[in-house]
Amino acid sequence: MKQEQFLAYKSLYKKNLLEDVLPFWETHSVDWKYGGYFTCLDQSGNVYDTDKFIWLQARQVWTFSLLYNQVDKREDWLKIAENGISFLKKYGRDENGDFYFSLTQDGTPLTHAFNIYSECFAALAFGEYARATGNDESYDIAVKSYNGFLERQANPKGKFEKSTGNRPMKSFGLPMMTAYLTYELQGIINPEKNREIYEDCVNQIFEVHYNSKTKIIHEHVSPIDQFMDTFEGRLINPGHGIEAMWFLMDVAEKLEKPELIKKASDICLQILEYSWDQKHGGIFYFMDSKGAPLPQLEWDQKLWWVHQEALIALSRALLHTQRKDVWAWYEKVHQYTWQHFPDPRNGEWFGYLNRQGIPHTTLKGGKWKGCFHTPRAMHECWKNFEKLTNQNQQ
Amino acid sequence: MKQEQFLAYKSLYKKNLLEDVLPFWETHSVDWKYGGYFTCLDQSGNVYDTDKFIWLQARQVWTFSLLYNQVDKREDWLKIAENGISFLKKYGRDENGDFYFSLTQDGTPLTHAFNIYSECFAALAFGEYARATGNDESYDIAVKSYNGFLERQANPKGKFEKSTGNRPMKSFGLPMMTAYLTYELQGIINPEKNREIYEDCVNQIFEVHYNSKTKIIHEHVSPIDQFMDTFEGRLINPGHGIEAMWFLMDVAEKLEKPELIKKASDICLQILEYSWDQKHGGIFYFMDSKGAPLPQLEWDQKLWWVHQEALIALSRALLHTQRKDVWAWYEKVHQYTWQHFPDPRNGEWFGYLNRQGIPHTTLKGGKWKGCFHTPRAMHECWKNFEKLTNQNQQ
Repeated sequence: MKQEQFLAYKSLYKKNLLEDVLPFWETHSVDWKYGGYFTCLDQSGNVYDTDKFIWLQARQVWTFSLLYNQVDKREDWLKIAENGISFLKKYGRDENGDFYFSLTQDGTPLTHAFNIYSECFAALAFGEYARATGNDESYDIAVKSYNGFLERQANPKGKFEKSTGNRPMKSFGLPMMTAYLTYELQGIINPEKNREIYEDCVNQIFEVHYNSKTKIIHEHVSPIDQFMDTFEGRLINPGHGIEAMWFLMDVAEKLEKPELIKKASDICLQILEYSWDQKHGGIFYFMDSKGAPLPQLEWDQKLWWVHQEALIALSRALLHTQRKDVWAWYEKVHQYTWQHFPDPRNGEWFGYLNRQGIPHTTLKGGKWKGCFHTPRAMHECWKNFEKLTNQNQQ
Repeated sequence: MKQEQFLAYKSLYKKNLLEDVLPFWETHSVDWKYGGYFTCLDQSGNVYDTDKFIWLQARQVWTFSLLYNQVDKREDWLKIAENGISFLKKYGRDENGDFYFSLTQDGTPLTHAFNIYSECFAALAFGEYARATGNDESYDIAVKSYNGFLERQANPKGKFEKSTGNRPMKSFGLPMMTAYLTYELQGIINPEKNREIYEDCVNQIFEVHYNSKTKIIHEHVSPIDQFMDTFEGRLINPGHGIEAMWFLMDVAEKLEKPELIKKASDICLQILEYSWDQKHGGIFYFMDSKGAPLPQLEWDQKLWWVHQEALIALSRALLHTQRKDVWAWYEKVHQYTWQHFPDPRNGEWFGYLNRQGIPHTTLKGGKWKGCFHTPRAMHECWKNFEKLTNQNQQ
């Protein structure tokens, strides 16, 4: 672990964010005519579909608001955020105030939200935008969406729930996103219950979904916290697990519990140990905890966000622990990720590689990939290596 | 096109059906304890999950009933069919008489059907079983399910429909499966409207979903039969298109319209022309009619059923037309398919190959692959080549 390496990585992430990733979205994605953003962008940034997906609209608002708040008070960034916020305010919600899943280019609603994650990302967007502008209505929408996200967790799919209720289960996504969202909305939401919420999330993740014997994080467990030998119960989503570990490191700092940071770092390495493709490199998208065949036909693909979350988690763990095993894994993931995903010719990163590491689709954005994971990872890693540089200078 | 080649193919399909595929399911899939079938079988036939999926339960009943009706009156086949029928009768339906999507091993309902295809496959199963046994209750359930499938076509997803209705569209699956199901249930359902139904399906497929200029079959079109430049509107499912072509050849015979057989054969070759992977061979799973990136991450994979449907369609077209271009395509698809999918060591066929033709998951059965496409294809191709052999002897 060398000082000049940290400095070089800091520059790499900063430069990629400011000179590659952001210009790509600034140039190609903003729909100044109807508001909001195009996210369906091909390899060079051409719009191949004009539908607007609420998750991605909200996430892009968050990204540009965050940059404005944390990197540089650039008016053009705020204007881009505002272009999304006004679109979401005007067209994003149904008559009950619930956010849709998708709209046409001009804001005509297409699809109702089939779970509560539209609320989750709306809360993220309006909260960060409120922080940038002090806008009261945005504060209110952030708080309302956050509360809706919490209140509806007992039945996240609402009327679209197809389960009969005969096999209830707990989902990892809920404590994971609750921890992140609560952390992100500090200063926006009422802080009274934050500690309780954090502790519940930590407990759900470490004691319910994480199995300390097998070292596996299960996406779904039974209500009595037991392993279920079913498709859902055997499912492992390594990217989810890794992402949650850096969320929990931040929560652990808040809770002033350094032992949780160590635990999150350990689990992060455990996940990487079992999900690393020994043959072709990279992290698998899905696995089965008993090694059974998976119904997810994309299980062996390498996804951009999984690898970006690993870079954040490992550099965050390094910052907190300075451990050599963490550094070794960081270097391994760094090498694979930077070799395979970025597209320096056109900007942004490829999203979807086959097992062998070749992009099987060259989109830069679509229904699920937008202006979110890449800029967030570039920003988080930049800041982690900046702190590591400063730490080592002291 | 040589007589001995037809004879060799006839033997190949017959032998694969009777000595490889059926023994695999007979040995591994029947749940004599709780009724119904295990369909989640790994490469060697071990059960890796015990949940029971209605589509696959029904399809397996159909397969064994059909074999009993058309191949050999073997009591053991009928007993296997009966094991599925009694399970479906006892546990398959909710209080409204609608079939579920999935159940546990012992028949506890897990998931409500999210569209009308559970009814479709139930009708298929009960119809063929009624034909085998003359059982009145099975006749009644077949007719009721068939009528339900027809009546609910205006809103196939029922209360689980997430669309707002602002972008209505017609789906190719409906006329395709209506044609097949109506043809299959001859003698079970009231025949009065059959001709009208067939003609409507032919019209929907040839005049609405098929674009005679571009030669493309679109999975979804607007209610005024226009191309929609959206994810759904651009979607091509070559396997669906090819499968529908042999359904329509059978319907055309019924309607005594040989010109439709020629048209279906032409379209089948057109689909193969644009969906054949020039680099690695095989037929793509999904394509975009404008060449835009696809959200389906499995788009470039090679699926067993797609290739089996192509073998049926091409051998059926050959039987009707004796065309050299059809034969050339048959030989090309035959070579790829038989080289890549069968697993002579363990029985049955691999289902899911990556673009390069390697199985990326080795299951023989799962949530979607069961005892249906492989035995159906073996049986249909066996019979097609048997007829071709006889035809050429005359």
